[in-house]
Amino acid sequence: MPPTDRIRDHAGQGATTVAAHRARRRLRADRARQLADLLRRQLLTDGFGSGTLPHESLLATDYRTSRNTVREALDLLRSEGLVDRLPGVGTVVVARKYPHGLDRLMGLAETLHEHGRVTNEVRTVGPVSAPAPVADRLHLPPGADVLYIERLRRLNGLPLSLDLTYIPLDLGTALLGADLENTDVFRLLESITGRPLGHADITLEAVNADAHSAAVLEAPRGAAVLMLERLTHLADGRPVDLEFIRFRGDRISMSGLLHRTA
Amino acid sequence: MPPTDRIRDHAGQGATTVAAHRARRRLRADRARQLADLLRRQLLTDGFGSGTLPHESLLATDYRTSRNTVREALDLLRSEGLVDRLPGVGTVVVARKYPHGLDRLMGLAETLHEHGRVTNEVRTVGPVSAPAPVADRLHLPPGADVLYIERLRRLNGLPLSLDLTYIPLDLGTALLGADLENTDVFRLLESITGRPLGHADITLEAVNADAHSAAVLEAPRGAAVLMLERLTHLADGRPVDLEFIRFRGDRISMSGLLHRTA
Repeated sequence: MPPTDRIRDHAGQGATTVAAHRARRRLRADRARQLADLLRRQLLTDGFGSGTLPHESLLATDYRTSRNTVREALDLLRSEGLVDRLPGVGTVVVARKYPHGLDRLMGLAETLHEHGRVTNEVRTVGPVSAPAPVADRLHLPPGADVLYIERLRRLNGLPLSLDLTYIPLDLGTALLGADLENTDVFRLLESITGRPLGHADITLEAVNADAHSAAVLEAPRGAAVLMLERLTHLADGRPVDLEFIRFRGDRISMSGLLHRTA
Repeated sequence: MPPTDRIRDHAGQGATTVAAHRARRRLRADRARQLADLLRRQLLTDGFGSGTLPHESLLATDYRTSRNTVREALDLLRSEGLVDRLPGVGTVVVARKYPHGLDRLMGLAETLHEHGRVTNEVRTVGPVSAPAPVADRLHLPPGADVLYIERLRRLNGLPLSLDLTYIPLDLGTALLGADLENTDVFRLLESITGRPLGHADITLEAVNADAHSAAVLEAPRGAAVLMLERLTHLADGRPVDLEFIRFRGDRISMSGLLHRTA
């Protein structure tokens, strides 16, 4: 971060060219992004609690930048729905992201148990004929029946994710009578098989929510979604749970640890 | 996936109520999402190569759904910029996502070496006074100088990510003369220290790109971005590289393996 605003943010000098204007705007936008990323980190780690951010002028001093840059950085965080500006109060934290681990395979209720109660609205559940890519990944013959489950998952009532789940029918039938509204599928699978699950292959992407998915998640159309595809295996290696999960980007972050050497 | 369209997609019967219309639309949207997720998987794993997707009617047969649902699923993938519809040709793959591993700590050029050449446009490089959160994470005294680097990273000329990097100045000064345009910072740090890096703490989020970041990444405003915060340590545990990385969501996916038990 540049320690000082070498180029002043106020405009209006007669000699200012269009190019110089643009360069200043770019510089300020760059600095605003740098500052927003640092503040985002503090928001994510509860550095401000659920309270109020320091006053703009204090942030400007602390980060050795201009108040215009601070305002622009706060605008970035506001447009992500993380903070809001209240007249007479200042900039307040309005949303938090819940951490989902990337180090161990865990269900949502398990992961978030410290943060509240996960409930699942079961939108669809029932046997369907497995489409080829599903049969292929679950090592089933093409067209074999699988249990399809579609759940809108909430934490303390707030929509977090929309999960599309395919499970081989020998395990799936036992799930049909289970308490899917209040229990992770992982836990149910372990209770059915009597053994802990093994591993999962995961793929993460960032996508813009289509209109329908956004409506289900009660998010704005086009909202950034953290998309997780996860194929979970039993301890003996058999694939038993294929899921396509859309997490609201403004409510979930994923954290983990990577090592340089194996 | 429902094996058949139990509710026909064509409308127009006089007796159709608004509620029934809505229910049909919701059902079709749900099915389109299911199908889009399965096709997305095949796109990500090069199932269609760089070629053409099967004809709509074939997809409808294969996936036991209606052509309207297929069209809607393809529209979803098109709005994500993954496919396009060419008159007289069909639906073609227009973009691919490059896989970035979540299993091992790797630089971008290292990760993507099979896919082409990574080049870095260095937008900013130079010493700055470390803002408090940066000093804190890098275990430096507040206000200590760090090297700040801002790079737009491209694969075969296409923008992939915008990286903001903070490095302690004792290592940073050695980077100032290095070939930052063509070399991963990881590799440079290992060459300076003469030892492999240790581990990194990472956090992933999905965010909508602000106007300025989108412009730098040559992406549409609001495009979903996979945001990675990564603090990399030397083998002895010293934190030496704090990065804030915005990956274009339409060009990168992250894959890894999770285990249920430690």
